[in-house]
Amino acid sequence: MASSLSPPEVPMELHRLNRDKLLKSLRDHLSASSRPHHSFVLLQGGEEKTRYCTDHTELFRQESYFAYLFGVREPGFYGAIDVASGNSILFAPRLPSEYAVWLGEIKPLSYFKERYMVSTVYYTDEITKVLHDLYKGHGKPLLYLLRGLNTDSNNFSKPAEFEGIEKFEVDMDTLHPILTECRVLKSKLELALIQFANDISSEAHVQVMKNARVGIKEYQLESMFLHHTYMFGGCRHCSYTCICATGENSAVLHYGHAAAPNDRTLEDGDMSLFDMGAEYHFYGSDITCSFPVNGKFTHDQALVYNAVLDAHNAVISEMKPGVCWVDMHILAERIVLESLKKGGLLLGDVDAMVSKRLGAVFMPHGLGHLLGIDTHDPGGYLKGAERPKEAGLRSLRTSRELLEGMVITVEPGCYFIDAVLVPAMENSATSSFFNHEQIRRFRGFGGVRIESDVYVTSSGCVNLTKVPREIKDIEAVMGGAPWPIKRTTSDNNGELVH
Amino acid sequence: MASSLSPPEVPMELHRLNRDKLLKSLRDHLSASSRPHHSFVLLQGGEEKTRYCTDHTELFRQESYFAYLFGVREPGFYGAIDVASGNSILFAPRLPSEYAVWLGEIKPLSYFKERYMVSTVYYTDEITKVLHDLYKGHGKPLLYLLRGLNTDSNNFSKPAEFEGIEKFEVDMDTLHPILTECRVLKSKLELALIQFANDISSEAHVQVMKNARVGIKEYQLESMFLHHTYMFGGCRHCSYTCICATGENSAVLHYGHAAAPNDRTLEDGDMSLFDMGAEYHFYGSDITCSFPVNGKFTHDQALVYNAVLDAHNAVISEMKPGVCWVDMHILAERIVLESLKKGGLLLGDVDAMVSKRLGAVFMPHGLGHLLGIDTHDPGGYLKGAERPKEAGLRSLRTSRELLEGMVITVEPGCYFIDAVLVPAMENSATSSFFNHEQIRRFRGFGGVRIESDVYVTSSGCVNLTKVPREIKDIEAVMGGAPWPIKRTTSDNNGELVH
Repeated sequence: MASSLSPPEVPMELHRLNRDKLLKSLRDHLSASSRPHHSFVLLQGGEEKTRYCTDHTELFRQESYFAYLFGVREPGFYGAIDVASGNSILFAPRLPSEYAVWLGEIKPLSYFKERYMVSTVYYTDEITKVLHDLYKGHGKPLLYLLRGLNTDSNNFSKPAEFEGIEKFEVDMDTLHPILTECRVLKSKLELALIQFANDISSEAHVQVMKNARVGIKEYQLESMFLHHTYMFGGCRHCSYTCICATGENSAVLHYGHAAAPNDRTLEDGDMSLFDMGAEYHFYGSDITCSFPVNGKFTHDQALVYNAVLDAHNAVISEMKPGVCWVDMHILAERIVLESLKKGGLLLGDVDAMVSKRLGAVFMPHGLGHLLGIDTHDPGGYLKGAERPKEAGLRSLRTSRELLEGMVITVEPGCYFIDAVLVPAMENSATSSFFNHEQIRRFRGFGGVRIESDVYVTSSGCVNLTKVPREIKDIEAVMGGAPWPIKRTTSDNNGELVH
Repeated sequence: MASSLSPPEVPMELHRLNRDKLLKSLRDHLSASSRPHHSFVLLQGGEEKTRYCTDHTELFRQESYFAYLFGVREPGFYGAIDVASGNSILFAPRLPSEYAVWLGEIKPLSYFKERYMVSTVYYTDEITKVLHDLYKGHGKPLLYLLRGLNTDSNNFSKPAEFEGIEKFEVDMDTLHPILTECRVLKSKLELALIQFANDISSEAHVQVMKNARVGIKEYQLESMFLHHTYMFGGCRHCSYTCICATGENSAVLHYGHAAAPNDRTLEDGDMSLFDMGAEYHFYGSDITCSFPVNGKFTHDQALVYNAVLDAHNAVISEMKPGVCWVDMHILAERIVLESLKKGGLLLGDVDAMVSKRLGAVFMPHGLGHLLGIDTHDPGGYLKGAERPKEAGLRSLRTSRELLEGMVITVEPGCYFIDAVLVPAMENSATSSFFNHEQIRRFRGFGGVRIESDVYVTSSGCVNLTKVPREIKDIEAVMGGAPWPIKRTTSDNNGELVH
């Protein structure tokens, strides 16, 4: 096992630019409503947690909004931005002297100032005094705190709390939508990290393909993925728990959790669905590959796989600023349904299938989601936007129009899930669409998902994910061919010529 | 990379025996104070958690007391034991129908009854009704809930909470000490899992030794360890965050956390300290190896290493039931101090050094701790027992006498930590013990820790950890020799003859 990659340097400039972006947005917003700039943004970073009543420390991962603005990897910090002056201030925890014995050198404040490129650094017990001293306005200084709904979890972000907060005016409404919208559009420096997370994860997916074989356990391929991305990419965290599903499990959309822990043995004839992505300096990737574990697609596997691949490719070819994501979801559904009809599994008019929401029977999840510091990056629904109500569409994590700078996953799928399929086949409103005889063959097939991370440019988009997608490429790579495939001029499709 | 090991079947009998042990202890305790047996033990299992305000799900790990009694890997359960009848009852969460689409098959209650070998299974919303129906006594049924202090974290365990709890009498005091004491003494089946966690972790440590070399990053060796234990041992969790410390970092006792994330590059001449242990079906291991990254000990490295190894071996040779752990700690200190004196680093009387607590300068942590489902397994201090106050001794996680069935780590160390060493060298009460000229050479040396997991038998103890410890063995293995070393009869020390 080897890699052509190594972890890139992370420019802390990235977070300074994120702060500048927020400052500009917030000032514009305040100016538009004639509100003064004399105020502070204040965020509380994450705290280290122990497991239940024990002293087992969970590996700390910074809260995402805080990571976005300050890039701080240590727990226990606060961060402020002086809206008027643009100065940024970190507040570091005051560590006890025993820390030096157990946890390492107690870094001077100057270390954090330099590392995180902020204007000044104080201790967390100085927040009240420092912000009061800096305040140039009248009355209590105004703090913009972060409180707002995460539309994927339905949880609210927790606004900063600290001793002395009663000596400030607080505004809990203004910051969240503005900061969230900053996160929606990625800068060049952010994009480079997401690209690296994609590069190392793509390479690891290829390793997994090459090592898949009958008789091993799903988690052994998870282990290979984790090892490759950490060993060669320095990625200590994944964007989410690995989904390593084979056989029937590939129809379980979020397989791999503690109650379904990737512990099945791979069998001859299985399809597989590996949804795995590494995170690098907070920025994530989210990639799914599907392939037969024995390296050769059957006719039926090829039918379902190509249905999904055609949907994936069609969506990517349409994506550009102004395109509505709900339309892309329906486009993907339509192509999957058409393919299944062509393959003899479905009967009748595809438009009628779409309007009867048959697409949601085969793809109950949304087509894709914003990706960044969170796997399900916030900002999918603007404040006041209503979620679609229809089956399938209501699972969409965004219904927005695409904007230049978004990174969004394109992840159509086609699954044979008894819990959804059987009721639809029995329902008199949809029963006639199914070729019951043919579809029986696919019970227990599992499912296929193809997921790439796509960046929206000014005129189109760029797929950041670089894994074998065409059946012939997957079979070649699983048969031992190097990736990327070296094509001869005769079958050159414009990708690579040697 | 390969392994001679594979994950063993886990007998759920183990948890049934754990419940039987609790029942016996609890009934004996109740009978002794003439209290009736008509009552229930009720524990609440752990819940899945999301990260901050997002829908990012942390990989679930069961709460340890619940894991001990029921072995349940899924979140959201409760478990009860009918103290009078001995029947065990699991309460499973009632999952919504969408679960089948997103997270997998909704298992029938009979699945959990069979898998976890309990008497009956109901849903969590039936707790009140079921326990009332089963209750044979008068008045409100009595519940023994788990509340008590974890003496490592100083946190209290959280007693079960559920709707309808007001319809019961609750006792929060009786259960915790009794159940904790059950966990202190390991059964044969528990021991077998701890042995496997040790076996696969030992093998992984040997892999790390063989792959350590100048120029790679500390975390790359962490990645190898994690991969080996997951790939070949099926260990998805580690007992704790890996400590992969080289050079000066090896003097940071709990290096490796998010603020010191194993990211140094290995340099020629470095000592290393790798403290890593895998967990298998909740049961853990905790192993430390120290070695020079270039594979050859210098004179100074050998001096410090052998000081610690002699302490480690001396303690193990003394361990048996009745031995006081504080005495073992002092024995280890004394041997380290004697070695440092012999090596010319210290001057004067070793007894005087011990009484001036010089041992704590070089080993600020305790000699070892109970190990089981938690890395720092509970029960180190019986209720009312006082912690020692002296430097070093106050860090002991137990001050108890050894009992047959305990598994305890033996982990002496010798570190050159500026934050402790410099004040002791400057302190007039201890300054004269130091050979200031000689000790200067060791500033920046880091430290050595040697840690094995040891099972106390009726007449002595067994070391469960199987890694190279002698300098000649470490150098041989790092030079490419197979492990275990095949000895010729001429240098046979009784371990292995070929």
